[in-house]
Order: sequence, then C-alpha cells, then structure tokens
Amino acid sequence: MYQFELEASEGAARAGTLTLPHGIVKTPCFMPVGTHGAVRGLHPDELERAGATIILGNTYHLHLRPGEDVVRSLGGLHRFTTWRRPILTDSGGFQVFSLAGLRRLDEEGVVFTSHIDGSTRLLTPERSMEIQAALGSDVTMAFDHLPPGQSSHEHAREAMERTLRWLERSRDRHAELVAETGVAQTLWPIVQGGVHDDLRRASLEGILARGDWTGIAVGGLSVGEPKPVMQRVLEGLEPHLPKDRPRYLMGVGFPDDLIAGIARGVDLFDCVAATRNGRHGSAWTADGKVQVRGSRLKLDDGPLDPDCDCETCTRFSRGYLRHLFVVEEQLGQRLVSIHNIRFLIRIAEQARERVISGGFTGWAAEWLARYHQ
Amino acid sequence: MYQFELEASEGAARAGTLTLPHGIVKTPCFMPVGTHGAVRGLHPDELERAGATIILGNTYHLHLRPGEDVVRSLGGLHRFTTWRRPILTDSGGFQVFSLAGLRRLDEEGVVFTSHIDGSTRLLTPERSMEIQAALGSDVTMAFDHLPPGQSSHEHAREAMERTLRWLERSRDRHAELVAETGVAQTLWPIVQGGVHDDLRRASLEGILARGDWTGIAVGGLSVGEPKPVMQRVLEGLEPHLPKDRPRYLMGVGFPDDLIAGIARGVDLFDCVAATRNGRHGSAWTADGKVQVRGSRLKLDDGPLDPDCDCETCTRFSRGYLRHLFVVEEQLGQRLVSIHNIRFLIRIAEQARERVISGGFTGWAAEWLARYHQ
Repeated sequence: MYQFELEASEGAARAGTLTLPHGIVKTPCFMPVGTHGAVRGLHPDELERAGATIILGNTYHLHLRPGEDVVRSLGGLHRFTTWRRPILTDSGGFQVFSLAGLRRLDEEGVVFTSHIDGSTRLLTPERSMEIQAALGSDVTMAFDHLPPGQSSHEHAREAMERTLRWLERSRDRHAELVAETGVAQTLWPIVQGGVHDDLRRASLEGILARGDWTGIAVGGLSVGEPKPVMQRVLEGLEPHLPKDRPRYLMGVGFPDDLIAGIARGVDLFDCVAATRNGRHGSAWTADGKVQVRGSRLKLDDGPLDPDCDCETCTRFSRGYLRHLFVVEEQLGQRLVSIHNIRFLIRIAEQARERVISGGFTGWAAEWLARYHQ
Repeated sequence: MYQFELEASEGAARAGTLTLPHGIVKTPCFMPVGTHGAVRGLHPDELERAGATIILGNTYHLHLRPGEDVVRSLGGLHRFTTWRRPILTDSGGFQVFSLAGLRRLDEEGVVFTSHIDGSTRLLTPERSMEIQAALGSDVTMAFDHLPPGQSSHEHAREAMERTLRWLERSRDRHAELVAETGVAQTLWPIVQGGVHDDLRRASLEGILARGDWTGIAVGGLSVGEPKPVMQRVLEGLEPHLPKDRPRYLMGVGFPDDLIAGIARGVDLFDCVAATRNGRHGSAWTADGKVQVRGSRLKLDDGPLDPDCDCETCTRFSRGYLRHLFVVEEQLGQRLVSIHNIRFLIRIAEQARERVISGGFTGWAAEWLARYHQ
C-alpha cells in the first residue's frame, strides 16, 4: 500500500513512483494546499485537470473548523471534499507555532489559543495523530517542535531533540490508531535542526534509528532564511537520506525553489504561494511574474503564459483576466490560481521527464536563467 | 437569423424555439446575468453544464469597465468572455436610473455620474445602440425611460411616451449600425407604463406601430410593486402581445415569479437573485429556501436539494457546503450559485415539457403549493 520506486536519477535529482491508498503519485510532484478542506477557490475537478495527484490538508484548520469529528462523521476528508486521490495532512505543528496564539510549550505538547474563537486548546503528538486518523489522510505527519527561523544552535538543538521524543509518541499513537480503526494511513517523520548542518544530520540519524519510515520530510526551511542557506542544508542532508524513500520539503515553494529542490534530491513539495499569488493577480510564467492587474494587459488578446497548457491559458485572454481583476470578479482569482498551480505541477512533470530521459541539469540551468532574466 | 417558432401552448403558457445568431434558445427560458462580462463567480462551462442557453450582459457596467472599445478590440463580448451561445444586452437604462447618480434627464438622454470613478457621462438612445453594437450581443434592448416604481399616472405616462420617442431613435441608430458594421444583432422594444393598465396598452400599441420587432420586452416590473400587481399588468397585456414573437419579462425573477410569469405568457426571464442569493448562502429548493450556513446542516450528508440534478447537488453534501460558507471559502458561493441557476433553468425546462405534453396548469399549481408550504 505504501511503496516508492526510484525510477531514474541524474546527480541528486530523482524520478520515482509513490503508491498510496488513494492512488499513485509520480515524483517529483507539487502538492496544492487545501487549507480548509478546499484548495482556495478551486473545485476538485479543476485540480485534477491541472494534473494534481495529491493535495495537502491542514490539521490545525480542520480541527478548528469543522472539527475532525464532523469530518469523520461525514465519511472522512476524501468523502467530505470529494477529492478522490491521495491526501497528506500536516501535523498542525507549523500553525500552532506560527498562526495561533502560543500559550505554553512543554514536553507534553503545546497549549494555544484558537485564532478563530480564542478558545484554549492543547495539541500533543497523540492528539495530532488522533485528528489525522479522523481525517483519514493517506499520509500523516509527525507532530514536531518548530523553532523560529534561524534560531541559535542551542534553541534549534532543543527543538530538534524534542521533535525526536515527540516522534516516538507520534509513532506509538499512530500504530495504535491503525490497529484500532483500520485506517489506511502512514506516518512520516520530519527532519528539524534549523540552519545548523550538524543538527540536521543528528535529526536524520535520530529519525532513522526510530523506525523504518515510508517517507521522510524536511521541515523548518523556507521560514525566512536566505535561499542559499536552504540549499546548503539540503545539500548536506541529501547524501544521508535513504535513496529508496520519498523526500518531502515542507512549505516550499516558488517555481525556482522547485527546480533548486529537485536538483538537490527532493521529491515532494507543497506551498500556498500558487493560490495566494493567484488570488492577488500575480501569475508565474517561464519569463517571470506577470501582474494581471497591469494596465499594459488591457488590450492584450494573448494568453497569460504562451508556453502553458492550463485551462486558463488555452482559453482566456490577458485582457479578459485583467478585466476580471479590475471589477473584482472571483472568476479571475480562480483562473489565475489554476494557472499557477498548473505551472508548478508542470515544472515537476518536466523535471521528471528530463531526469528520466537525461538532460535535467542543463534544462534546470536554462530554466532558471530564463526565469530570472 | 431571428426566428421564433411557437410550438405549443396551454392557456397563456407557451413553449417555443428562438433562433439567434449564436444558437437556439428553447423557451420558456431563464437567462443568467453576466454583470461584468461574467456571471458572478462562474465559468462559462459551468453555465453551459447548468443548461444555460443565453445569458445577459449589462451595457452600463461594460461601458464603464472595461469600456466597449476594449471589448470590441478584443473581439466582442463572445470572444472576450469565451461564452459561445447567445447574449442579450440591456440598454443601460435600468442602471442609470437606479445605480448611477442621475444628474439630468431630458429628451436627449440621461447625464449620470459613474458609480466607479464619479465621471460625468451621457447616455442616449443612440449611444446605447453604439455601445451594444460594439459589444456584439445577439439581442440589444431599446433605451428606455424607467420611472420610479409605482409612479403616478402622469409620471408613468410621461416616461412611457418618452420611451416611444426614444424607441424610434434606438431603431434608427440600430439600423444604421447594422448596415455600417454588419453586426448580427436585433433590437427589442420595451413596454413601459408602470402599474397602469391603460398606459401599458398604449405603450404596446405605440411599439407595434413603430416596427416589426423580433421580440418584445416588458420592463418596469418587479421594482417594488406587490406581486399581484405585476401579475395583473401581465394579464392585461398578454392578449394583445403578438403570439408569434418571444416575450421577455425584464429583471424577473424568483422561482415562483417564473412559474407565475410562464402562466401569463412570458417566454424569457433574467434576474441576479440566483447568484446574489448563492453568494449569500441562500439556496432554493422545491420545498422553499435553505440557509446553507444553518447549524442544522453541520452533519447532513445529503444533497442541498434531493430533487436537483445540478453538479453541486449530485456531488457535495450539505455538511460540506455549510463548512465552506463558515470558513468563507469562495468555492461555497460558487457551488450554491450553480445550484440556484440550475434550479431556475430547470423550472423553465419542466414548464416547457408540461406545456408541450399538457398538464402545465396542474403542475404549476402543485409546484407553487409545495414551494410556499
């Protein structure tokens, strides 16, 4: 039920096939983020047509609204949302450390204040596993302690070591839940350690000593550190990551981050930037960003991105998209979000083809040079 | 290019086929309103799948943004929006009398203040025809003087008589534009006269004396008068309307208004209520309204309307739709708008079937009784 086949590689870049209970994911792969049980503004059919094969669900948001009991009683996250393909849920850790009001952090877990109704709630490794089991995702993430970006060595070490202890508790509760409920889901650990290479190595060693995981995530990056630092951390980890397991770089990224991550051995990505930028009228193209509201698009009859095969670019003109944003018509936000998601998915698809056929490295260099020009 | 075939009738209710340059419209028919070159929040494909065969465009809104010159230079409203089927445009009259700041009204036309940028603009019968020709709709509407709802006999008479004089100017400019530009569009006149039956009759007689129209609209109803008054006006007009021409009741309506209008010989309807209610989470069903935000829907796994064949009701649960509204996810507004539009279109489709097969009158009475229960 949880298999990963490495099909090809070029340098650190990889092409693989990940099999999950709800379907097959060809890697490298970008996963759109379904914050509240929907990828912002989009219909599940639009995601499928954009080529999405797996999406992410946010445990923190779904716990607050509608609550995991509601999702469970309506058949789990797949039936609730009608998304038929694989789902990965995060642990809620990122949101309680960034979005919610953090009230107390100790060995047991995190006491936080809901950003919706101000209620005080406790999230622990065990609770996170219980919520994710109720949601019924294919892949659950271990509950981790996420320190602020670029924390000192001491603070990053403390958080990394706690994350290992919490991983044991996540692992044990997850195993119980699978045995009790028969839910078909797997658990992935998260490498922490901030920007400190020795801590990242120690985190990975601790993870590998604690289980035989079906996948491994790298967390705590893309949280404010310079991009070369993120790339250095990935390069330091890559030779030590098991080759036969998928690697997921959490919360990344932008188009150039995908290329850079794939070149450093990453298989899976997620990020809200595609839809967030889409809602704000910022579209990615092979030649860089286009601001859809821009007045120079007013009479432009061409597509947003001439190279793109998405259902926005193959149908609607830049002039029409601009008009929709000017009159604040929601369809515009939707159409640009569809384009941005397809843009990231297609980068991953193209990288995969190049890794398999050979020539990824040259293609990646050309792609980045054109994008940044 | 502009044909209307009356296929069947039962009492005043009719079933017909209207042929327009961009396609065929089976009547009775509900036309969704594409205010700014898009039916709020919806994709043209969603409208087609909901069974829409003709939509409405707002001349006032499109004149202000993006401007008719932009639409023309991007290929006209069909190419601009990618909607392939017929489009009817209103004259802008309703908006300048209701939405814009009315500055001056005289025989020439209306000086108004744009509600977007405060600029002062002049709309006349000739300008309205020129804008609609630039938009390239299948059906254009004559520029009319719309008096306030339930105006006195004197005021309603003055507006009705001016509307006849403006009709001559609309007709003449429209004929010139068709000859000059070759645009494939027809012009429909609008019966005015407020709530006064004698004025309505006089308006219709004046219209019929001024041309051989391919369709006739009834305006100035559903603007605050009691529903029985609207129905009385329709009943007074119906025997005098040419049987072989389609009749369009402007700005109507709600589900029960459609049934009542069809029973009184109306063929075409338009109204923003379907999408406006959809955006606010109010859904029509055969048993009346459902408030989608309602907490009693929280755990409801059933469809919004068990009798409905729309792509919302056949796929998503009430519990999920409620959740989308609670978290303010745009997909919820879209899904309920799709349902409401399909609901009105299906009423018209069902009425048509009953008129053709017989039994419309009994069906309509049962439908209204159930809806109002």
